Amino acid sequence: MVSALKRFLIGRPLKSTELGEQKLTKKKALAILSSDALSSVAYGPEQILIVLFTVGTAAFWYSVPIAIGVLVLLIALILSYRQIIFAYPRGGGAYVVSKNNLGMNSGLIAGGSLLVDYILTVAVSVSAGTDALTSAFPALHVHAVAIAVFFVLLITVLNLRGIRESATILAYPVYLFVAALFILIGAGLYNVFTGQVPAELHAAVGTPVAGISLFILLKAFASGCSALTGVEAISNAIPNFKEPAPNNAAKTLMAMGSLLAILFSGIVFLAFYYGIAPNAQETVVSQMAEGIFGRNFIYYFIQGTTALILILAANTGYSAFPLLAVNLAKDKFIPRMFTIRGDRLGFSNGILILGFLSILLIVAFKGKTERLIPLYAIGVFIPFTLAQTGMIVKWFREKPKGWMPKLIINSLGALISFVVVMMFLLTKFTQVWPILIFLPLIILLFHRIHKHYMDVAEQLRVSAAEPTVPIKGNIIIIPVASITRVVENALNYAKSLSANQIIAVSVCFDKEEEKKLEEKWEKWNPDVRLVTLNSLHRSIVHPLTKFIDMIEHKATDQNYQIMVLIPEFIPKKGWHHILHNQSSLLIRTHLLYRRNVCVATIPYHLQK
Amino acid sequence: MVSALKRFLIGRPLKSTELGEQKLTKKKALAILSSDALSSVAYGPEQILIVLFTVGTAAFWYSVPIAIGVLVLLIALILSYRQIIFAYPRGGGAYVVSKNNLGMNSGLIAGGSLLVDYILTVAVSVSAGTDALTSAFPALHVHAVAIAVFFVLLITVLNLRGIRESATILAYPVYLFVAALFILIGAGLYNVFTGQVPAELHAAVGTPVAGISLFILLKAFASGCSALTGVEAISNAIPNFKEPAPNNAAKTLMAMGSLLAILFSGIVFLAFYYGIAPNAQETVVSQMAEGIFGRNFIYYFIQGTTALILILAANTGYSAFPLLAVNLAKDKFIPRMFTIRGDRLGFSNGILILGFLSILLIVAFKGKTERLIPLYAIGVFIPFTLAQTGMIVKWFREKPKGWMPKLIINSLGALISFVVVMMFLLTKFTQVWPILIFLPLIILLFHRIHKHYMDVAEQLRVSAAEPTVPIKGNIIIIPVASITRVVENALNYAKSLSANQIIAVSVCFDKEEEKKLEEKWEKWNPDVRLVTLNSLHRSIVHPLTKFIDMIEHKATDQNYQIMVLIPEFIPKKGWHHILHNQSSLLIRTHLLYRRNVCVATIPYHLQK
Repeated sequence: MVSALKRFLIGRPLKSTELGEQKLTKKKALAILSSDALSSVAYGPEQILIVLFTVGTAAFWYSVPIAIGVLVLLIALILSYRQIIFAYPRGGGAYVVSKNNLGMNSGLIAGGSLLVDYILTVAVSVSAGTDALTSAFPALHVHAVAIAVFFVLLITVLNLRGIRESATILAYPVYLFVAALFILIGAGLYNVFTGQVPAELHAAVGTPVAGISLFILLKAFASGCSALTGVEAISNAIPNFKEPAPNNAAKTLMAMGSLLAILFSGIVFLAFYYGIAPNAQETVVSQMAEGIFGRNFIYYFIQGTTALILILAANTGYSAFPLLAVNLAKDKFIPRMFTIRGDRLGFSNGILILGFLSILLIVAFKGKTERLIPLYAIGVFIPFTLAQTGMIVKWFREKPKGWMPKLIINSLGALISFVVVMMFLLTKFTQVWPILIFLPLIILLFHRIHKHYMDVAEQLRVSAAEPTVPIKGNIIIIPVASITRVVENALNYAKSLSANQIIAVSVCFDKEEEKKLEEKWEKWNPDVRLVTLNSLHRSIVHPLTKFIDMIEHKATDQNYQIMVLIPEFIPKKGWHHILHNQSSLLIRTHLLYRRNVCVATIPYHLQK
Repeated sequence: MVSALKRFLIGRPLKSTELGEQKLTKKKALAILSSDALSSVAYGPEQILIVLFTVGTAAFWYSVPIAIGVLVLLIALILSYRQIIFAYPRGGGAYVVSKNNLGMNSGLIAGGSLLVDYILTVAVSVSAGTDALTSAFPALHVHAVAIAVFFVLLITVLNLRGIRESATILAYPVYLFVAALFILIGAGLYNVFTGQVPAELHAAVGTPVAGISLFILLKAFASGCSALTGVEAISNAIPNFKEPAPNNAAKTLMAMGSLLAILFSGIVFLAFYYGIAPNAQETVVSQMAEGIFGRNFIYYFIQGTTALILILAANTGYSAFPLLAVNLAKDKFIPRMFTIRGDRLGFSNGILILGFLSILLIVAFKGKTERLIPLYAIGVFIPFTLAQTGMIVKWFREKPKGWMPKLIINSLGALISFVVVMMFLLTKFTQVWPILIFLPLIILLFHRIHKHYMDVAEQLRVSAAEPTVPIKGNIIIIPVASITRVVENALNYAKSLSANQIIAVSVCFDKEEEKKLEEKWEKWNPDVRLVTLNSLHRSIVHPLTKFIDMIEHKATDQNYQIMVLIPEFIPKKGWHHILHNQSSLLIRTHLLYRRNVCVATIPYHLQK
């Protein structure tokens, strides 16, 4: 039944050879990988205005130069990541670039930072989308957490089905959102150029403003940079592209960068020209759409696609997290299970863990994850900085033809990214301090895991220098509860293994029971020795372990190996299991993990 | 760590021989086993008044004759259960009595009804006690469910520690409650007899009332009978008493009956005399205490002990449920695990299941379990009726000396109990109908379980008529992932077992990997055959199972037995397990339950 449900939700298992068919075209990749970056224009410009508003509406004109600064950073980032795509065509993004050029620890900082960030992406985006939805339909407000969790589960299932199929479903909303914002900006600009918008709505660019300071401008700039989260996604996901993967990825990146630049600057400019002030009840985009169109169909279309794309932005996390996890797992810094492809060829474990952790975050914060946005933004700019610093080192080291312009681009990107990180630390320390705690902890964990894998590999290596000593003989111990066919079956099997000694052992809880069993055994099968052990505390495992220790002592001297052969009857129906004592499971687990004995189970299958 | 926590919560394990020391004295037994019955006087009288109030306050005098009716039933029940205690000194109560005299199905109806009832007892009592607490401290109201769950967990832990210790803790509140109500009733009666209570407060007994009907009187009577829930607890728990158990139990029962009769009639009489009308904001006992003392220390003492005893009433369920479960499990109608004594000699599984299910009920009903009271009451009166009918049959069948008075007592009890059941069905059908659904379902489940145990016993019986055929030879299959010391260790062991054939099997996901392994194997260990299986869908279990099926086909013909020997390395630290694939666990479970092969694991313990 579980497997039928699984089949229904995620589809039939695919063969490994079908992998190529799951690769992405540029159009679908743009939809899948850019929803995170594009959706951030829905809140990025607003973040700038919120900071400037602390000085007064007269300061709003600064949003224009700040936006230009953000655009410069955007261009630097896009060009830089374009260079990364060609330099590292197998993907891996910030983690791989930092690791290869700056050393393992820088790579781990970038990787750890991004891993956590993708979880935050999912939680924050889905919560924000749910907020947009419940603002439109207030009756749903009490169910906000349940709705958000539902969306995460939905996106998780879509991703388990496989990347190509989810792209088909996810492509429409992304393109609809872009279309909606193009209509909004187009209509707005038409109004501006035909002189329908009164100039009094905004202060002219350059008007002196009392109380403005460099600190506030930098804070506004840093806040605006939250619109740039997500631009790294494409460079991490190159292996998902159709061949030639790097070229296709680079083209997709440029398309995304252009769209992002147009939407971002359009919204900032119109917000400034219409003199829109941020307010807690209504988003800037909503105010703008209302001002241009009124509350008609187009308004609801814009709001609806915005809500949708925010929820789908989570999908970027689902594309990037499992691939990054594979890279980390291949380098043995996180559990190996992240490298295994599931039934539909996606890295299911990464997808499931991401879904689970983001649901935990949503529930823990009761759906109010806005507080996490600054943490999320700094978590993106740390790897940005590291990746571009890594590229600087690479250009210096390799000095390929025409490396100077490339170096300049990356240096500019690294510098601005670094400034943004510092700005976050200085101006929003109360919100971003947790990263200073959990990032070192994650790095520590990475190293612990790595050390363990290295230790294991060393211990498992077969060496001709130390040949194994052949085992001289076998002792078989059979735990017995009463005289049944199951035991008979086990004894019969033990005899066939030609062991040097077979001992039946019974743990009894009272003397009377013990005596009865001994008498019965004597009559029934005297050619195998029965040892009865008394258990005062009603534990089966303890006396048995003690007995085995005793036997083992002797066995080791003679280079004998002990096998504990557990007779177990297997009921015909699954639910019958709860009707029987699970002592055998207990014995099996305990002995296997604690003692150096072979633990065998010989089943006796019931017929009804 | 888990075991340290367990030790802290429930104490060191006790030896089986310490069982006698855990037995109950009369004083402690009264505290443990009567909190359910005694606490019901806190709501029983009120239930009568609520029904009479539908006609008008003039009808309140009917509470006096109704209370006399309830007292008659109480006396009949107490005397009847006293007879049951001596007739069945090994305990079991309604289940055993009905089973022995009326047949298995009647016993199962009584047993099933009581099992469910004890769960309801815990949920209803704890919720009611929590309500009393949150009424006193309204700030706690929003946390009502959490508080109720906490109390259930607390009582569960106390019971896991063992019955004697919980009795010591639980004795005080019960006796304090009895003392508090004695003070209340004493002071009330003093006021009445010294003429301090004006006669106008109540209508005289016998005043004609318009609109009263037999239906309403019977409904009021049935409601009042909810005060009698819990009187059966002592007869179920005889094995918990110190020797001579039946005499001690009988004396405890009489003491409880007397206390219950005094408290019940005192409260009914004073409520009538003071003319107290039920109201949703304040309980009858609270109104009475306020009328007699005002809101001073004594008032809070009475309210506090009432709240406490309601929560502790749940403990009666904890004493009775596991013992009833043992009886049902010994007769093989519920899983055998209920017969196992835990570390502290209590029947831990029964205690844990009871705690778990009542928490489920509390959470499902969000702490508002009052609706369950009628269901709970009818669930008590069904076994009452059956037990006493059983006693009638017993007297007729055995006709011991002086059986006539005994027969009359039981007949009266059976008759009134039966009428009460009918009254509940007629007057409160909308609340009690679920019992008509789940009781048959439970009986069906009992029979299914019983049939399974009988089937198993039959199949496991060793018969000389069908001697086992000796196994002629052994084939050992070793699943292998790569060439490591773990595999080396397993091969070495397999060779020592002198099998007829040893086959190493590897499941590969791609051709390249397969070829590499084959070459490596060839170089390393050519004297054991390696079979590589290709898995298109990245499953290890499926190709392996198919291969085993193939081998098994041949093996069965020659009466060979197959062993699957799984090489497994055991990490030194527990958390390391998540870092390794759990394929071996998967293979083990799948093969053991699906195929007729011996499944063995040979561990290789890592040193670091």
